[in-house]
Amino acid sequence: MKKILLLGAGRSATVLIKYLLSHAQEWNASVTVGDQLLETAAAKVGTGNAGNAIAFDVTDESERKREIAAHDIIISMLPPHLHLLVAIDCLAFRKHLLTASYVSPELQEMNEAVKSAGLLFMSEMGLDPGIDHMSAMKMIHSIQQQGGAITSFKSGTGGLVAPESDDNPWHYKVTWNPRNVVLAGQGTAQYLENGIRKFVPYHRIFTTTEQFKISGYGKFESYPNRDSLSYISKYGLDNVQTILRSTLRKEGYCSAWNALVQLGLTDDSYVLNNLGEMTYADWVNCYLPHKPKWATKSVKSKTAKFLDLKHGILERLEWLGIFEPKPIPLSKGTPAQILQQLIEQQWKMQPTDNDMIVMRHEIQYLLNGEAREQISTLVLKGTDSLNTAMASTVGLPLGIMTRLLLQEELFLTGVHIPVMSQVYLPVLKELETLGIRFVEEDRPLTSKPE
Amino acid sequence: MKKILLLGAGRSATVLIKYLLSHAQEWNASVTVGDQLLETAAAKVGTGNAGNAIAFDVTDESERKREIAAHDIIISMLPPHLHLLVAIDCLAFRKHLLTASYVSPELQEMNEAVKSAGLLFMSEMGLDPGIDHMSAMKMIHSIQQQGGAITSFKSGTGGLVAPESDDNPWHYKVTWNPRNVVLAGQGTAQYLENGIRKFVPYHRIFTTTEQFKISGYGKFESYPNRDSLSYISKYGLDNVQTILRSTLRKEGYCSAWNALVQLGLTDDSYVLNNLGEMTYADWVNCYLPHKPKWATKSVKSKTAKFLDLKHGILERLEWLGIFEPKPIPLSKGTPAQILQQLIEQQWKMQPTDNDMIVMRHEIQYLLNGEAREQISTLVLKGTDSLNTAMASTVGLPLGIMTRLLLQEELFLTGVHIPVMSQVYLPVLKELETLGIRFVEEDRPLTSKPE
Repeated sequence: MKKILLLGAGRSATVLIKYLLSHAQEWNASVTVGDQLLETAAAKVGTGNAGNAIAFDVTDESERKREIAAHDIIISMLPPHLHLLVAIDCLAFRKHLLTASYVSPELQEMNEAVKSAGLLFMSEMGLDPGIDHMSAMKMIHSIQQQGGAITSFKSGTGGLVAPESDDNPWHYKVTWNPRNVVLAGQGTAQYLENGIRKFVPYHRIFTTTEQFKISGYGKFESYPNRDSLSYISKYGLDNVQTILRSTLRKEGYCSAWNALVQLGLTDDSYVLNNLGEMTYADWVNCYLPHKPKWATKSVKSKTAKFLDLKHGILERLEWLGIFEPKPIPLSKGTPAQILQQLIEQQWKMQPTDNDMIVMRHEIQYLLNGEAREQISTLVLKGTDSLNTAMASTVGLPLGIMTRLLLQEELFLTGVHIPVMSQVYLPVLKELETLGIRFVEEDRPLTSKPE
Repeated sequence: MKKILLLGAGRSATVLIKYLLSHAQEWNASVTVGDQLLETAAAKVGTGNAGNAIAFDVTDESERKREIAAHDIIISMLPPHLHLLVAIDCLAFRKHLLTASYVSPELQEMNEAVKSAGLLFMSEMGLDPGIDHMSAMKMIHSIQQQGGAITSFKSGTGGLVAPESDDNPWHYKVTWNPRNVVLAGQGTAQYLENGIRKFVPYHRIFTTTEQFKISGYGKFESYPNRDSLSYISKYGLDNVQTILRSTLRKEGYCSAWNALVQLGLTDDSYVLNNLGEMTYADWVNCYLPHKPKWATKSVKSKTAKFLDLKHGILERLEWLGIFEPKPIPLSKGTPAQILQQLIEQQWKMQPTDNDMIVMRHEIQYLLNGEAREQISTLVLKGTDSLNTAMASTVGLPLGIMTRLLLQEELFLTGVHIPVMSQVYLPVLKELETLGIRFVEEDRPLTSKPE
């Protein structure tokens, strides 16, 4: 009997735990779920006899080593900076490791040692990163195998709210880590466009957007996501002229969020002390210049004037509550922390709300002298507050990867991300049977009016 | 005989070394100058018998402890992050320490121990910080002693080029650390304006400017410098409505530098690899959006359109060379590093050029029911390429402080900055005799047209 250890039983692990438990018997495997809070693990494992819940503190070295040594496959759903601790022990005790997080440089450096030990450390095996890599690589390989030359690759993913639960002017709710929503885009985005490397500083990211429609779901927009340049080699796109990975939002979100960035409200680099009786309006006033002629104007109207806000943006800001004369319920905090507690209230998912994942790849290529484009779109809605689209798309690839490892259907060692056909073909195939499927179009490229 | 040890014999130390050597005999003191390069120290000490040059590596623990133990007063002109190493040994061996750098939190924490040991660790004893504190405190205390209530305090300092050496459209040359010129303003500026805390993110710092004139020297402008809020308590200005410390430039500099910031060219957070044959124009093109209708346009004209540049700004950018089709002479570097090597060429001080320090305090106060303002201005030009205004204003306060310690004219222990009259009065008095003097005006405040 093989033993699976899943570390971290938070919201994103719900569907994965259910998947593992439902297949444990068929796989002749046991499932142990560890979480800092035993109750959290126990609630997700439930009362069946396939699973075992334990309290697990990753920083307790002896506990960590004991549990890793006692299992065969370790799935880490812990916060990304904690994977390395787990990885070191997985290597020492010769255990496979799966995560849904980006490969850190430290993890990448373990590649040779992991290979020599005959182990697989598969990272970026969730949604984004994860399903994005797999579905993109399937398209890329298929075009290349037909003899096509890919000239442009654009790909975007968004964790959004389902249209039927969408009741605010931002068309957005918090369906994942709210801190990451506030800090999204910080740093400098890097991508390739028509053969030129492009670097976009944070203060221009939310104005560097592209628009598109998805039939039945309306208009969306995308903004650049981190470093796309490194995917030229990872995806084997050596002669590509454009590569851009992005984050998706409903139309209108980016220009309104940009107003918060321009003011400075997403800054996480310093703490405002003694917030005391400060209201949201007082707070925003700290980011506006002092002009005597504005002395009698409201913070809302000064903001509109200062940023020269177009129609719709001011309404979104107002709806968020940043102009309210209500006290901020924190004694101190960074601007990002103040904004986070506000969006956690205003963009809260209600118990009956469903989330929605949108992923879209747009590839341009030359085949037999003809310019063509292939567009592949995934839209997936959650079914209830536990079985969210986010939890399904993050968890199920990890679950299927676990099956592949258990059933020894694959011979792969080292530190990897899922870009190889022996991984993405079986994973995408099973995801389809679970309702996660892309709609694909392939057509001659008609030049667009610019 | 008292023994003085000066660590670091770079450009800013020249005038200080000369001052110490010329007074050593009168003080019955010896002067040792240590530098990583013995030649540097030896060249500055010269051939008289008052001074002694040594090779000194601050990271060599035994050498550091030996030299500090063998002297009585240690002056550190080392890069700021190295002061702490020196400070720890100064405390252990019971030696006074003087620096021209900002007090770090770690140094501040040593206050009680330094006090118990009967030592003085005086920091921020240069120009800015240094002379700015002393000259401001003299004004503040004098107004307060007359019964005046200070409502507004604004203070700015600039290290500039003398008008007779000013031959470029930026009216700027590199008279101090060029890396600091490129990174100036990064972070979030904080100040108080009309009773409201103001926070200005980096991307808005160079548009948050104020203009003023200095008779005979033309128009200047200022942008906010770091955290002014902490000086409310340091300066004893509890009821002040406005406090703003700033950096000074000649008129027109800030709006042109802002264009570089908006593009992203001052970013120091990532490295561009494989610069290869990339020209400055190619590089700037990486920061412009791709628009098909711009296909035939030059990088210069795209930049002008993208940033909607006003008259004068484009000319300054062009003069700097960022649109040149010349290869960048680096194989890799951050944008800030690429820009730095460009300004080091373009803004280079020629052997016959002189620098100029400008400092200006503007205080508004109420006295006997009348609103008044006091403006104090220092303009100091260097006399040659060694005896720069920067080296004089950074070094001489440290030299005078050394005299005060040697002649035991002061009884002060702990970690301090020079805000107390027992320090600023004798230092400012001697600075005046050395030609560093402020011009003061005091007049009724006439409300300005806004």
